[in-house]
Amino acid sequence: MSQPNPTMTPTIGVFDSGFGGLTVLRALLQRIPQAQFAFIGDTARLPYGSKSRRTIARYATQSAQFLVREQGAQYLVIACNTASALALDAIQDAVSVPVLGVIEPGASAARAASRTGDVLVIATDATVHSHAYAAACRALGLRALEKACPLLVPLVEEGWTDHPVTAEVVRIYLDELLAEAETQGLNPDTLVLGCTHYPLLRPLIARSVPHGMQVIDSAEAAAETAARLFLHLDSQIPIQHPSEERSPTAQVRCFATDSVEKFERLGSRFLNRPVGKVELVDLGG
Amino acid sequence: MSQPNPTMTPTIGVFDSGFGGLTVLRALLQRIPQAQFAFIGDTARLPYGSKSRRTIARYATQSAQFLVREQGAQYLVIACNTASALALDAIQDAVSVPVLGVIEPGASAARAASRTGDVLVIATDATVHSHAYAAACRALGLRALEKACPLLVPLVEEGWTDHPVTAEVVRIYLDELLAEAETQGLNPDTLVLGCTHYPLLRPLIARSVPHGMQVIDSAEAAAETAARLFLHLDSQIPIQHPSEERSPTAQVRCFATDSVEKFERLGSRFLNRPVGKVELVDLGG
Repeated sequence: MSQPNPTMTPTIGVFDSGFGGLTVLRALLQRIPQAQFAFIGDTARLPYGSKSRRTIARYATQSAQFLVREQGAQYLVIACNTASALALDAIQDAVSVPVLGVIEPGASAARAASRTGDVLVIATDATVHSHAYAAACRALGLRALEKACPLLVPLVEEGWTDHPVTAEVVRIYLDELLAEAETQGLNPDTLVLGCTHYPLLRPLIARSVPHGMQVIDSAEAAAETAARLFLHLDSQIPIQHPSEERSPTAQVRCFATDSVEKFERLGSRFLNRPVGKVELVDLGG
Repeated sequence: MSQPNPTMTPTIGVFDSGFGGLTVLRALLQRIPQAQFAFIGDTARLPYGSKSRRTIARYATQSAQFLVREQGAQYLVIACNTASALALDAIQDAVSVPVLGVIEPGASAARAASRTGDVLVIATDATVHSHAYAAACRALGLRALEKACPLLVPLVEEGWTDHPVTAEVVRIYLDELLAEAETQGLNPDTLVLGCTHYPLLRPLIARSVPHGMQVIDSAEAAAETAARLFLHLDSQIPIQHPSEERSPTAQVRCFATDSVEKFERLGSRFLNRPVGKVELVDLGG
């Protein structure tokens, strides 16, 4: 395997079950352009969304250990809502570097956006069943209603991000969620996209929500929190305001546990630039 | 683990990456009601449809060995199109009992149904990219055009088997497939459902195909071939004509590598009866 980064430039490890987390990496690149990044997608075992806590924790810690031990990551971002919801503690126990998930940043951004204190969260099955967003929101004084939207990831991966079928599926899910909110006497004004695939649907979703409802992108929220956290931990890390400017110095290495062809083909949609050569690694699964 | 079946009743092992293969088990139960069945769904690692040949072969042989070594299966049915397409040879090398996949039975049924000799196949990404159906069809003198339909499995698992969104997705996929067939100068009269999830969409698909087009269910075709094969191999196996009558003697044990709750909840839709208690096994992945 490669040697740990020998320079003073920090290496930030980013982990996802697939390549959805590249939306978080994109947001990180905009904010911390002079860091080095190692991204691993555990594509041999995706999706995590339908798996149990025990299985997800085992898989996620293997990827986290790869980033720290073999890629020399000094910070980790768990760019996967399901793993953040179900395995953050296990990952923090397994490695000795700071680890940031995406749930709490998403909840914090919802806290900042909401005036009514009632928020909606859409995510995968496992994230919703963990009720991690509801717990994180409750800790911030928010009431959250969560809904699993299992068709949205396949629709994004099919490339139907601006398609009438996807608009109809989003309408059905949102109608069900808003009806349930009304039944529970909630007055939601904020919708959290609790899955890193969903930022690709943000324009479509923003057109579908009731007038005035804020849409929170968990990828942006996590990158914002990561930039602040890393600056706090290590003032040598250069942070900049987000822009779509690509830094010439940012180095990104991408790894996958399977199917690098699919990663390379689909990943660029999420990273919004070519992902380059994706290296295959075997985590023993 | 349990003891191998001590009686003369044969044990038939049925394997799938998930629970879609329960449609094959349902068809087997109708034809070989006095056998004992052990079914394993490798739910910790599904879906296979987006994974590489190497990974699929490793996973599938572990499940096949579990059925033979720990459940005493004397025959195996690979009730998973992706594993049949990519790992049948590896499984046959790894175990010493007869192994039947679903690809060749599907192709044979298409051969029997087609008058023009041109057939269409819909399946997962990995099955299509393997071109296993095209090869099996070509060996029988058929020309086959294959299309990946990655949204259909999630739609079935969402329970939208008779839903306007699913009808629209099927219409889009079939329109694209028929247009491509016309471009290639084909005159298809038969559509093969090359994924064990798709039988749940058969009524909807049958309403969507052009008038006169035959729809071949790979689950039914595989069970029909299995019944004939097992009778040929062992004339003591009682075979009967398919009926929806449930045999009081058929014994079914179901295993999963993860998430038995989801298996139990969704599996009954595929088996068309309650799946009972699903036992969790760890294949080390």
